[in-house]
Amino acid sequence: MKDETPVPGFRFAGIASGIKKPGRTDLALLTCDRPAAAAAVFTRNRVRAAPVELAKNRLRAGRCQAIVANSGNANACTGAQGMRDALATTLEVAQALDIDTKLVAPASTGVIGVPLPAERITRSVPALVSSLAPENAGEFAQAILTTDRAPKIAREQISLGKTEVSILGIAKGAGMFHPNMATTLGFLMTDADVPAATLKPILNRAVDETFNRMTVDGDTSTNDAVFLLASGASAASATSAKNTRRFAQAVTAVLQALGEMVVADGEGANHAVRIEVRQAPSDTHALKVAKTVATSSLVKTAIHGRDPNWGRILAAAGRAGVAFDPNKTRMSIGAVEVFARGTPTANSEADAAQVMNAPKYEIRLQLGAGTGRAHYWTCDLGHAYVTLNADYRT
Amino acid sequence: MKDETPVPGFRFAGIASGIKKPGRTDLALLTCDRPAAAAAVFTRNRVRAAPVELAKNRLRAGRCQAIVANSGNANACTGAQGMRDALATTLEVAQALDIDTKLVAPASTGVIGVPLPAERITRSVPALVSSLAPENAGEFAQAILTTDRAPKIAREQISLGKTEVSILGIAKGAGMFHPNMATTLGFLMTDADVPAATLKPILNRAVDETFNRMTVDGDTSTNDAVFLLASGASAASATSAKNTRRFAQAVTAVLQALGEMVVADGEGANHAVRIEVRQAPSDTHALKVAKTVATSSLVKTAIHGRDPNWGRILAAAGRAGVAFDPNKTRMSIGAVEVFARGTPTANSEADAAQVMNAPKYEIRLQLGAGTGRAHYWTCDLGHAYVTLNADYRT
Repeated sequence: MKDETPVPGFRFAGIASGIKKPGRTDLALLTCDRPAAAAAVFTRNRVRAAPVELAKNRLRAGRCQAIVANSGNANACTGAQGMRDALATTLEVAQALDIDTKLVAPASTGVIGVPLPAERITRSVPALVSSLAPENAGEFAQAILTTDRAPKIAREQISLGKTEVSILGIAKGAGMFHPNMATTLGFLMTDADVPAATLKPILNRAVDETFNRMTVDGDTSTNDAVFLLASGASAASATSAKNTRRFAQAVTAVLQALGEMVVADGEGANHAVRIEVRQAPSDTHALKVAKTVATSSLVKTAIHGRDPNWGRILAAAGRAGVAFDPNKTRMSIGAVEVFARGTPTANSEADAAQVMNAPKYEIRLQLGAGTGRAHYWTCDLGHAYVTLNADYRT
Repeated sequence: MKDETPVPGFRFAGIASGIKKPGRTDLALLTCDRPAAAAAVFTRNRVRAAPVELAKNRLRAGRCQAIVANSGNANACTGAQGMRDALATTLEVAQALDIDTKLVAPASTGVIGVPLPAERITRSVPALVSSLAPENAGEFAQAILTTDRAPKIAREQISLGKTEVSILGIAKGAGMFHPNMATTLGFLMTDADVPAATLKPILNRAVDETFNRMTVDGDTSTNDAVFLLASGASAASATSAKNTRRFAQAVTAVLQALGEMVVADGEGANHAVRIEVRQAPSDTHALKVAKTVATSSLVKTAIHGRDPNWGRILAAAGRAGVAFDPNKTRMSIGAVEVFARGTPTANSEADAAQVMNAPKYEIRLQLGAGTGRAHYWTCDLGHAYVTLNADYRT
């Protein structure tokens, strides 16, 4: 897979280093021609992998020139050796690129608790660096996958003043995708000229509005990280209020697109569903209801069975700890109202079941208890999830 | 199934009224020879079924003489008609028993949003009442089941002063079993002489220590209720501090036994697992960690796969919002230590996997962060759960 349109200033590579089974790529590198302004959001899990600790530390200065990422091994719960391996990997990359090792961040995803085969990585670094090219984002996207069914790439093009700039996003993630965390691995690259101090709040907010409102299985990884790097190659700056807003919207759009791909690729999932809650006592209350519905196993299995089971949805909403009156609540699946005034809507089931055949649709709850609103993305829970997670060691 | 040892003062019945498929019993009645002192705990779900609202109202006075329970239909989200049906059912029972209708409480479990076939119930009441017998607790237990694989009955026998008294417990529940709620349907009958004012705090605390620390799928029903009725037939009173304590312990023991049966019967489950958390900053923190581990889909699928996946367990603990250091954390599965000092214990996996073949075992986490402790019961998440819930309409 090739992404033919490069982002000025960035180069990518993805190769096989032997961490995974032969033939599958597992080692990825992205570099910037100069030190990029950088921000990142990391997992809030108390149990953090060595690469997360190291990247967090190195990104603090707001600069980054290279990210080396591997799949097949998370380098998590690997003790002091894990940190040594992360350091060795980034050092090897820094030397091959002839840059300061502090400008290299690591990212890992895959099995937990198994020592990183650091030697396989370090001996593959020359080949990795020599295959760097501006049009290789597709190779990078492929090499970071684990249980994903497909690589995830999204792009926004915007004008800042008279100049067009790009924001390219690459993500991986299928299981262990859940909010209050940076969630999954995500890499955003732009040629806009934006200082790190501006990138940071933009990224935080964008993650909060997108990845933090999506769930596959309620679990959060030890390794989640989202990076945003600005090469400044376009010389188009996002310093005016208008340009900053436009840039922030584009970052959010890229993360939203990536997040929807991750939910749709939820382990074994066939449906990405937006739970939209309206008329809650407040936005915070709406989010609580949306999240409780989105994470309910009974709702998720009903989505899998294409069963317009408004009873389970309402019961999940009812246990969210938010005050509302079921007799004032309305619910629709797609455009089909299935519940109103305390009872199911007559003859709505067949139409609602029809909606639920779609790969993507909305379930809307109007609580009649105020003006608060929020949404949350979820996916179905099916046999493939059980198969994948009862047998696959993450 | 017969429960041969009656509880003095109580009679039971369970018959087929045609709510379910022919041949399956679905209507149950328990009565006391005189108005019993009574307490109850109900679902905290905002969406409550009509029978819950009615029973809650009637139990407020601390007296109850009969409970009519049906399976196959929850009479939930059935609007004003649902309340009329609950009233009609209890009225019919009160008339047949020749007692005040305010002394009759209803309980329903089954499909949500379908009108209760009240006429089938009312026309079955004569047959129901005529089959009442002290030894028919087994029939009662059978008639309240839905997706359960087996009836659930537990009993404790204690001495209060010189008199032996019984506490008999009957429960149903397999899915939608989750705390912060009264959870499932439970009926406790004792011949001890205990006033309602004493029963209430005893039941609240017992539910909090047992059913509220167990999960099957994180969902909570619109219909959950646990009743405790004291006939006083034994004339043994639990008014002294010592007797009250003994009685309370027995109530807790009965609920614990019933709760373990429900978890073990979790929809499609093969393993009931106690998540024991020690050395947390406080008991509250320990409970947060235990609950987060117990409700993690990744942990539950690992339990299903008999995979000693300490990485998932630790990752779940890490996202509970409790401060602890993974490098000071120890974890064991049964007696097998699988993780300590930040890394997995060498060669522990085969032994731990062996433990995980058992139908019941413990996973213990010692966080090294204080003296707080708590536990939580969970079960595995397997294909049968998905099959049952993607296809079965609850």
